[in-house]
Amino acid sequence: MLEGIYKTNKDKVKLLKDSDVIVRKNKKENKVALISGGGSGHEPAHAGYVGYGMLDAAVAGPVFTSPNPKNIFNAINEVKTDKGVLLIAKNYSGDVMNFKMAAKIARNNDIAVEIVIVNDDIAIEDPDNRRGIAGTVFVHKIAGAAAEKGMSLQEVKNIAERVVENVKTKGIALAPCYSPTTGKPSFDLGENEIEIGLGIHGEPGIEITEMMSSKEIADNLLTDLLNYFDINNKQFAIMINSLGATPLMELNILANDIDNLAHNNNLNIYNYYLNSYMTSMEMKGVSLSLLELDSELIDLLEFKTKTPFLFN
Amino acid sequence: MLEGIYKTNKDKVKLLKDSDVIVRKNKKENKVALISGGGSGHEPAHAGYVGYGMLDAAVAGPVFTSPNPKNIFNAINEVKTDKGVLLIAKNYSGDVMNFKMAAKIARNNDIAVEIVIVNDDIAIEDPDNRRGIAGTVFVHKIAGAAAEKGMSLQEVKNIAERVVENVKTKGIALAPCYSPTTGKPSFDLGENEIEIGLGIHGEPGIEITEMMSSKEIADNLLTDLLNYFDINNKQFAIMINSLGATPLMELNILANDIDNLAHNNNLNIYNYYLNSYMTSMEMKGVSLSLLELDSELIDLLEFKTKTPFLFN
Repeated sequence: MLEGIYKTNKDKVKLLKDSDVIVRKNKKENKVALISGGGSGHEPAHAGYVGYGMLDAAVAGPVFTSPNPKNIFNAINEVKTDKGVLLIAKNYSGDVMNFKMAAKIARNNDIAVEIVIVNDDIAIEDPDNRRGIAGTVFVHKIAGAAAEKGMSLQEVKNIAERVVENVKTKGIALAPCYSPTTGKPSFDLGENEIEIGLGIHGEPGIEITEMMSSKEIADNLLTDLLNYFDINNKQFAIMINSLGATPLMELNILANDIDNLAHNNNLNIYNYYLNSYMTSMEMKGVSLSLLELDSELIDLLEFKTKTPFLFN
Repeated sequence: MLEGIYKTNKDKVKLLKDSDVIVRKNKKENKVALISGGGSGHEPAHAGYVGYGMLDAAVAGPVFTSPNPKNIFNAINEVKTDKGVLLIAKNYSGDVMNFKMAAKIARNNDIAVEIVIVNDDIAIEDPDNRRGIAGTVFVHKIAGAAAEKGMSLQEVKNIAERVVENVKTKGIALAPCYSPTTGKPSFDLGENEIEIGLGIHGEPGIEITEMMSSKEIADNLLTDLLNYFDINNKQFAIMINSLGATPLMELNILANDIDNLAHNNNLNIYNYYLNSYMTSMEMKGVSLSLLELDSELIDLLEFKTKTPFLFN
């Protein structure tokens, strides 16, 4: 898969074959280097976001398995600059442990490294255990623009943490994905059932209910997400993300219901992102993310990028 | 669905609600107006390609059903300019008949209209009966750039016909899509079978075989396509298109095999497009398109567009 990403994007990226790392084709000095990664199976996350205006490197682990600290360190070593390195990890114990270990090795080698952990999934009550899901892509995009504009390591980290604070996501699934090694489904779900709040590796959700209409799904997701924001005088970016096998036709049907409901709730929408941004292989389902914006975040969100998977 | 496309892209498009037509937000005078369309279920085709540098309007029929001539004429009437209108239709009897009828009505109303029919699917031997599939998006992109640059109706038509002549596509499916009205699958296929050369509405293909590896699929598709070209001293654009439910992970695995095989065949690849460009609802499968380029086509292909679904 990584060879495929590299070979179809040779103008933008290169592949560190021994480390499963996709890096920008031309290393850019004098900017903070941004690195993300995690288990595979979430494409276009994360290698699809490597390039001008977003990530400097993406480290890929096996399917749904964290990359090891050595490979993460190899990525750091490849893209490090005098301005330092920011790691963006999703809040899973394996990812957090391995990214922190790699950061430690890097610091022992006198490389300035900071870490930001994304935990946008509101399906988990306890913020410490909240998983990082599709909202992570907003962190890549906005921190990526901040780094490209020449901000310092601390400034880019602060911006990334503001995005983490401002983004919340909730997902639903209609059908699981299947492990390529065992052929087994990532969870069991009846044909007319829907699972609410599940994770992007098939972790259990909040509840399993009977199939719902698009309108009911929109209501379930948006109503819950709105509890986390004071929407007065605020603008929001909305991401409607396919988990892999849900086509654009269905995303747009859902988008209509979300937009109607958003207007009924006086939610001020700055713009929409509707596509497959962070998938779970061929899982059927969607996630909805809300990102609270301010003028600086809007400016960074609008920064034009050049990456294998376009996010503009 | 059309409401969803409109509401999530209000900066780029508007919706003619009574005619199921998506048009550019700001009508552009003094350019050839480009219109495409067809049955729904192929998203992002065609409404996702309306905007600066591509289509001026897309007419949507019901799922897998041609739009009626009245709606096509309404689209023509909305976006027509003094430089004329070019219709791009896929080679299905319903589409061809209805687009021609709409053209006739338009001519009776003193509107200059030309039609180009796309027939890139090599699964059908007889060129007259060849279906239009994913290669159609290259026609939108290149003719769209030609129109945006101010070329005349005849020039844009000539360019579009050159793309039609230069693009060939072949697809395979692993699982059908399901009719939203009947709930029935678009065709029957065993769990370990693969159908070669089928159409984007589930029309029968050339053969049904046992499941193949990614490498075997790459070989089957590319070898057949290469029969249609003299590749010496030529450059090609390659499109690897998901039919809806095949995720980017699998497309990239296939891309690696296609690229290896292309190099073994001394195929000179200018660039790749890898995504869901023309789907068949939630069908599992892919299509591979080869487009022979020349310097003018490359120039037009590189033209930056602003459409709901990014194609840059």
